[in-house]
Amino acid sequence: MSVLIVGSTALDSIKTPKAENPRLLGGSASHAAVAASFFSPVKLIGVVGEDFPKNYVDLFRRHKIDLSGLQIQPGKTFHWSGEYEVNMNNRRTLLTELGVFENFTPHLPEAHKKSQFVLLANIAPALQHHVLDQMKKPKFVVADTMDLWLNIALADLVQLLKRIDGFVLNDSEAHQLTKEDNVFAALKKIHRMGPKYVIIKKGSHGSILSSPRGFFICPAYPLHNVCDPTGAGDSFVGGMMGYLAAAKGTVDANIRRAMIYGSVVASFCCEGFGLNSTTKARRADIEKRVKELEKLTKF
Amino acid sequence: MSVLIVGSTALDSIKTPKAENPRLLGGSASHAAVAASFFSPVKLIGVVGEDFPKNYVDLFRRHKIDLSGLQIQPGKTFHWSGEYEVNMNNRRTLLTELGVFENFTPHLPEAHKKSQFVLLANIAPALQHHVLDQMKKPKFVVADTMDLWLNIALADLVQLLKRIDGFVLNDSEAHQLTKEDNVFAALKKIHRMGPKYVIIKKGSHGSILSSPRGFFICPAYPLHNVCDPTGAGDSFVGGMMGYLAAAKGTVDANIRRAMIYGSVVASFCCEGFGLNSTTKARRADIEKRVKELEKLTKF
Repeated sequence: MSVLIVGSTALDSIKTPKAENPRLLGGSASHAAVAASFFSPVKLIGVVGEDFPKNYVDLFRRHKIDLSGLQIQPGKTFHWSGEYEVNMNNRRTLLTELGVFENFTPHLPEAHKKSQFVLLANIAPALQHHVLDQMKKPKFVVADTMDLWLNIALADLVQLLKRIDGFVLNDSEAHQLTKEDNVFAALKKIHRMGPKYVIIKKGSHGSILSSPRGFFICPAYPLHNVCDPTGAGDSFVGGMMGYLAAAKGTVDANIRRAMIYGSVVASFCCEGFGLNSTTKARRADIEKRVKELEKLTKF
Repeated sequence: MSVLIVGSTALDSIKTPKAENPRLLGGSASHAAVAASFFSPVKLIGVVGEDFPKNYVDLFRRHKIDLSGLQIQPGKTFHWSGEYEVNMNNRRTLLTELGVFENFTPHLPEAHKKSQFVLLANIAPALQHHVLDQMKKPKFVVADTMDLWLNIALADLVQLLKRIDGFVLNDSEAHQLTKEDNVFAALKKIHRMGPKYVIIKKGSHGSILSSPRGFFICPAYPLHNVCDPTGAGDSFVGGMMGYLAAAKGTVDANIRRAMIYGSVVASFCCEGFGLNSTTKARRADIEKRVKELEKLTKF
């Protein structure tokens, strides 16, 4: 089955202690879509400006991503610029030029409305709602978010939680949302807000799933060299949704393994700037790291 | 087989946002010894003052801990006082009264010198050296440490690394020791300093082993309520050493499972003040959590 993915499609200018890379292909939907494409056909919903480089369109096409829901609007593509500190954990935003993203209204082509697996990647909760309004009985809807929306669109986000099956956020966002310092206490509160599946992302410490079948402690793949972690969280959830859409059986039966695959795609993402390393990975490379993770966690 | 454990034996006065508990049984050797005692006979090396409460001696005795190497000196027992912040991660020391600990010289009873499994729990590296000087061909020596020794006794610690099989430290100490931000890069450097087995403790994020058989990602047991994390790291390494000393087969074959048992004992430690919760745990409770961890990590 295919995955419908809505989110940001952007140009990222990223500075790390080691290098500077202008106008890379970025955005939550771009990372998630490429990650999901390793496992399932992907339908991308987003907006870019007339300046969006043709080679980035070609990149999406090479990944067989359906671009019929990608709007090309007069104006400039969303441009984000950020800088990482030496430890690669802390980053600061240098510049945000919304461009055509400012007035983005996601329109779903008719054929997209029946998608069974929907990923509302990180984007304003109002737009995530707008996509859901157009859907016809999706089977499994997951939303990602970021601290910005907790700060400026909390009411929209809280409403969204009642409409989705799965919610993905990082540990500091879970704390911000619930005021709970303990991650398991936070998970309990988030379930009460709606979603049956809640995943807390902890970067290099992996992630935790809380689901009807209990908790799952998902490891991160050990990386000796992190080049650029931008988009790792989007790759994780994108890979997970792609795997779930392709897998036979219930979400409950597949979600742990789906997280492992997401974790592995995220590891490739971190090894290069933007999508440079992710796009070079092959399915066999992914399977190899999944097998390694099996060995690394066995006792 | 038995485990020889040297470290601090102290009285801890601990303040958390919820409660205040004066003069609890504490110290690295106390926590490690009780943790190890679930699996193996333990020989404790330490020093206390004449004020050391009899009920704490009884507690050690109930855990069948050999106290022939515990010195009782004229003066006061080492007293540490600390306060935790709301998130239970950050703590600050309010008071340190060294007492008899200031002039502690560990003397090993003759029978102790042939111990095969030795845990040099957190204590000055010079004292860890002094214990090793008295040992006769131990089979497996593990040392723990803390940031203080990296700051004031780095040369001693670096020398110690050449004499031990396993080294346990937390992620910020690994960074401090190696100047590496990436934990796997840090592990590589620490191996070059001597130890074949290096374990990085990451608190609620679990721990990582780097060994001749590769990495092991060890989960922490999910705790919904952390009462007092003091001694959790000592309990972890104590439990691990106790399990290793009791297990048949090579260290390589057993160390992953030993870490899981250490992780579980540490989880009990966090659920009560001082050793209150650890001492209430039974072997069956430990086995139950080990089984849960198996389920929580399976994919």
